[in-house]
Amino acid sequence: MDSCETGKTAGIIIIGNEILSGKVQDSNSFFLVSELRALGVNVLRISVIPDDIAVIGREAALFSRSFDYVFTSGGVGPTHDDLTMEGIAGGFGVPMMQHPSLETRFRRRYGEKLNEAILKMALVPEGADVVDFDDNSFPLVFFRNIYVFPGIPRYLREKFLLVRERFRTACFFLTRIFLNAEESEIAALLNQIVAAYPETSFGSYPIMDNPEYRIIITAEARDRGQRDAAVDKLLGLLPKQIVVRVE
Amino acid sequence: MDSCETGKTAGIIIIGNEILSGKVQDSNSFFLVSELRALGVNVLRISVIPDDIAVIGREAALFSRSFDYVFTSGGVGPTHDDLTMEGIAGGFGVPMMQHPSLETRFRRRYGEKLNEAILKMALVPEGADVVDFDDNSFPLVFFRNIYVFPGIPRYLREKFLLVRERFRTACFFLTRIFLNAEESEIAALLNQIVAAYPETSFGSYPIMDNPEYRIIITAEARDRGQRDAAVDKLLGLLPKQIVVRVE
Repeated sequence: MDSCETGKTAGIIIIGNEILSGKVQDSNSFFLVSELRALGVNVLRISVIPDDIAVIGREAALFSRSFDYVFTSGGVGPTHDDLTMEGIAGGFGVPMMQHPSLETRFRRRYGEKLNEAILKMALVPEGADVVDFDDNSFPLVFFRNIYVFPGIPRYLREKFLLVRERFRTACFFLTRIFLNAEESEIAALLNQIVAAYPETSFGSYPIMDNPEYRIIITAEARDRGQRDAAVDKLLGLLPKQIVVRVE
Repeated sequence: MDSCETGKTAGIIIIGNEILSGKVQDSNSFFLVSELRALGVNVLRISVIPDDIAVIGREAALFSRSFDYVFTSGGVGPTHDDLTMEGIAGGFGVPMMQHPSLETRFRRRYGEKLNEAILKMALVPEGADVVDFDDNSFPLVFFRNIYVFPGIPRYLREKFLLVRERFRTACFFLTRIFLNAEESEIAALLNQIVAAYPETSFGSYPIMDNPEYRIIITAEARDRGQRDAAVDKLLGLLPKQIVVRVE
């Protein structure tokens, strides 16, 4: 495929005091951006916010209006600090409701061991729906364009991989140019190309401690031809001796 | 010290398309939250945003109003995608200016090799000031309560460690309780304690694949006595056989 349609946008909300206090290092946002990128979805923002109903509600409503898809991580479970569902309900001004298929599932699974804490996990904002998997995986709850994932990395990954294909959209074409130079030496030249090829998005990253190259330039576009034209022009202007390789 | 004053708050803004597109995994926010926590600073939000002047400006102004300290990472350097300074200037409606001591430093360091791209790195929002280190380290630029750090992890760390003491404030007291139980079994009991001890902040984290314990409960307060009272009460109510250890 030589050309891509304009893709979808997404925002990611990581919910949890444990991340903001340095007790746990978030790996879910990197997993999600990498997956979404490969699916052609353009992630425009990641927010890490506390376990606070009002903050969750405001962020969820803002992200839902701003992006095509919203992914949340964390704050689902039976304890007092699991506030994501209540936060979303508050942000959209809808009541909470016991979701019938979730409740049925819990009653079947836990039988006599069922208690209030487990039933709390069947409480969702009114209007939420679920994607059902097999009997072993807890369903994925979504509300409008907001997909609610658990914070435990293994569960988030398993669940995302089960639904990833529904988010596939257009692709990106990326070239990386490895240079042995200082950024300040090539900045003026790069700026010319950036201005001349507005459909191609350029990045310039200084690299430490590599014996071969000191900068990686990235050039990325949704259209292969546009990307190729921009890269060819840039390579034509760069001094030959600083170009280490092109990928 | 058995009691701590109410500490300061902070927000972290990570700037860079490379993070949002999964090309680079952010490690700066984890470094900063861990350091700030140890200094007694309460990080309330992390935002990852694109290299976009308007977005940077809005976020910087919002964070500056909302938190005592703001730390930005990324978007400083000589290339077209280094927009943090311009973004901050835009967000506060101030012009850019050539900072005299930065300019002097660059002229001394680069001599005849000085060019426009290097001089761009001396451009800061009017009203910005610098913390000077020795001659080998680029100064730290700050604008009001916003501290502007480079995105390269090694530079960010070096620079932060040089200024960290100016952010030290009150401390936190933390206890971790390791339990061999399901969250749903202890949720009701934990909720009682959460309600009874509002000054202590509790977390409950399910742990996978550990042969000894399946939950870590954290209890954290700025006052040691309040934390101890809450932990003692909780330990008194939990069934003895599920408590693996307390740290």
